[in-house]
Amino acid sequence: MDVTIGRTNSHKNFFFKCRSCNFSYDHTLPSFVKTELSKIVGLESHQLERSFQRGNIKFYDSQGVNALQFRKRIHNIESGTMICFGDEIEVIRGFPKIRRTLMLSPTLKDHFTDEVAVEEKMNGYNVRIALVNGRIIAFTRGGYICPYTTRKAPEIMDMTDFFKDHPELVICGEMVGTENPYVTHYYKEIGSLGFRIFDLREKVTNQPMSLHDKRGMLEKYGLPSVRLFGIYGVDEAVFEVGGIIKNLEQTNREGVVMKDPQMQIPPLKYTSSHAHADELKYAFTYPFDFGRPFFFSRVIREGFQAYELDESGEDLKKRAQRLGEAILYPMLNTIKHVSKEKVAGEDLVIHVDSYEEAAEFVHHLQDLGVVATVHNFEDGKAVIRRIHQSTTDRITNYLRGGLY
Amino acid sequence: MDVTIGRTNSHKNFFFKCRSCNFSYDHTLPSFVKTELSKIVGLESHQLERSFQRGNIKFYDSQGVNALQFRKRIHNIESGTMICFGDEIEVIRGFPKIRRTLMLSPTLKDHFTDEVAVEEKMNGYNVRIALVNGRIIAFTRGGYICPYTTRKAPEIMDMTDFFKDHPELVICGEMVGTENPYVTHYYKEIGSLGFRIFDLREKVTNQPMSLHDKRGMLEKYGLPSVRLFGIYGVDEAVFEVGGIIKNLEQTNREGVVMKDPQMQIPPLKYTSSHAHADELKYAFTYPFDFGRPFFFSRVIREGFQAYELDESGEDLKKRAQRLGEAILYPMLNTIKHVSKEKVAGEDLVIHVDSYEEAAEFVHHLQDLGVVATVHNFEDGKAVIRRIHQSTTDRITNYLRGGLY
Repeated sequence: MDVTIGRTNSHKNFFFKCRSCNFSYDHTLPSFVKTELSKIVGLESHQLERSFQRGNIKFYDSQGVNALQFRKRIHNIESGTMICFGDEIEVIRGFPKIRRTLMLSPTLKDHFTDEVAVEEKMNGYNVRIALVNGRIIAFTRGGYICPYTTRKAPEIMDMTDFFKDHPELVICGEMVGTENPYVTHYYKEIGSLGFRIFDLREKVTNQPMSLHDKRGMLEKYGLPSVRLFGIYGVDEAVFEVGGIIKNLEQTNREGVVMKDPQMQIPPLKYTSSHAHADELKYAFTYPFDFGRPFFFSRVIREGFQAYELDESGEDLKKRAQRLGEAILYPMLNTIKHVSKEKVAGEDLVIHVDSYEEAAEFVHHLQDLGVVATVHNFEDGKAVIRRIHQSTTDRITNYLRGGLY
Repeated sequence: MDVTIGRTNSHKNFFFKCRSCNFSYDHTLPSFVKTELSKIVGLESHQLERSFQRGNIKFYDSQGVNALQFRKRIHNIESGTMICFGDEIEVIRGFPKIRRTLMLSPTLKDHFTDEVAVEEKMNGYNVRIALVNGRIIAFTRGGYICPYTTRKAPEIMDMTDFFKDHPELVICGEMVGTENPYVTHYYKEIGSLGFRIFDLREKVTNQPMSLHDKRGMLEKYGLPSVRLFGIYGVDEAVFEVGGIIKNLEQTNREGVVMKDPQMQIPPLKYTSSHAHADELKYAFTYPFDFGRPFFFSRVIREGFQAYELDESGEDLKKRAQRLGEAILYPMLNTIKHVSKEKVAGEDLVIHVDSYEEAAEFVHHLQDLGVVATVHNFEDGKAVIRRIHQSTTDRITNYLRGGLY
């Protein structure tokens, strides 16, 4: 094992580097973990030690950043938290899980006190952007540094002044559009790639700015915010959100996040039936890779939404049809596809300057356990082919007479 | 711990009795388990010992039968196997799991050699009936002795002569009809309660009789057999089964079991789309009790069936509608029901001679972990109310604003 543990020249903090493997958890723990890290994240040293042993905290080294990655939530410290070692220790906390309500009434009135701010929840992938060692770095939900997002985010929006003035802040937002490698969705105002910010949070504490301060700050630095539908009294919020969801439904948009304007109460999310259908369609395009875990929660949401909307007759029939088609049609298409000896996979388009950049991104996907290759590179456009192996293998097996 | 282990007067075999608990697994193991049992079931004594320690074999005492119950499959010995201690040791092997094919072609041709016998698979509950200590006893799939089935089966069919001549055989069949406490389904030829036999198997070895011998035997003793659609050459079987399934589909019947007439090759099952929908309807009437484990396999079957039937247009649309409604409608009904402060439960009707018999059956259900009470008893008809607690609790919680 080739581990380097030492101090940077300029500063008293530690850094780690394992040249042979990034993610091994059986390194000898440096004393830093038990002492300083314990204080920084507010966890007991034996909790940290056990988390290392269980692989819930791992060494991470990518894109020139050495870090500790929280693979699971450990007490109050979110999964996806990164402790980055550079000239200083930078703690980029994981983005907190936003809980979902199945009912708008009575939940909104019970959960919030006075007012509810309703922002759009967009269908893309969650990104945190922060200054680490003087460089703007983009982290995915799990804490991985995404080379593509790290390169693209600054092209989409200029964060230089913002981070010059506020190096202590983390930009939390959604990367959206039709040409990204994770979650593609068409928004007419976005097109191929865009970014929308929903939170500004402090490093280390993860404290979010109030809605008012956040919006002022984003306006000041010309940074793109998610849409704010309005701030409503808790009594009118159910009615207002109901209307908003109906409109989102018609334009095939995902849903809303409802927030205490002071950000003192945890936010809640609520999504449209179209969003549930879209997610089921994707899951059942690759049923043996995603079908099982995706299914149940989305179906339950449909049941409660139909109940709250007091649906019956034609509306209910349409919802059932949409649900059944979202499950059956993509599955049937994939079975047909695989029956022609083809592989169940999807092509992701990214814009890169070179073949090497595309290959670097594929390497990043492989680190995440995704089977992918650079399928094509031409005129700055790379097609990444992602293979869904379980779906391919199991459908092939059943078509050949394999037993269930 | 109050365990009695001894020998019967008449015979050299052992019996066990634990008066304080039926299912504890930490009893001191009698030497019988390591020596004689090991020989009877062909398992190593350390395998048996470990299975006891893990709770995969348990002591069982009910309806005057002392036994060892295999709660899980252990090598070749099926889950549901019962080693019954009486004047002799009787080994009632578990009913083997019948594997499913998602495709008729090429599976039938690959799996069977020459001919395929196609029998109806009925929608009821699997029962094994055998002579234990001179008494006719009915076991459920898991090996539990069902007091209701034990009492009813002899009323439905006279097995006296059969068992007098063939005490070494086990009758394997399906209890069906609208008035049974497990799986109710209306069959016009059955009505409230009936029994259909699909296998005759040897005690100890679990060897099934050939189709021809079985049918001869059932005819001789006037015992009711499941329907045999026909015996087909493997080349024509796919076409024939396709037609049979289409007819079953129209009369809302479950499906078929396909067997090698000599019973040398394991049988296969294949079911109708209506059966999948019916099972989903039941599961989503109690989504938080059954929804998750039930769902996936049934949906996958629909996908492959649609593929094999080369469905498109209106037929496919109808299948999607049926699937969506089977999931959504029962769930919505249950949410509405629970919203009126009612409990999610079902009423099972059984015919008994006394309140005590009904109470005994409820006790049996409670042994299986089912929450049930005698709701009503009048004129020999008992209504057993079965409560689905998770569904009741979780729906209540979400309706009151609980977060998902």
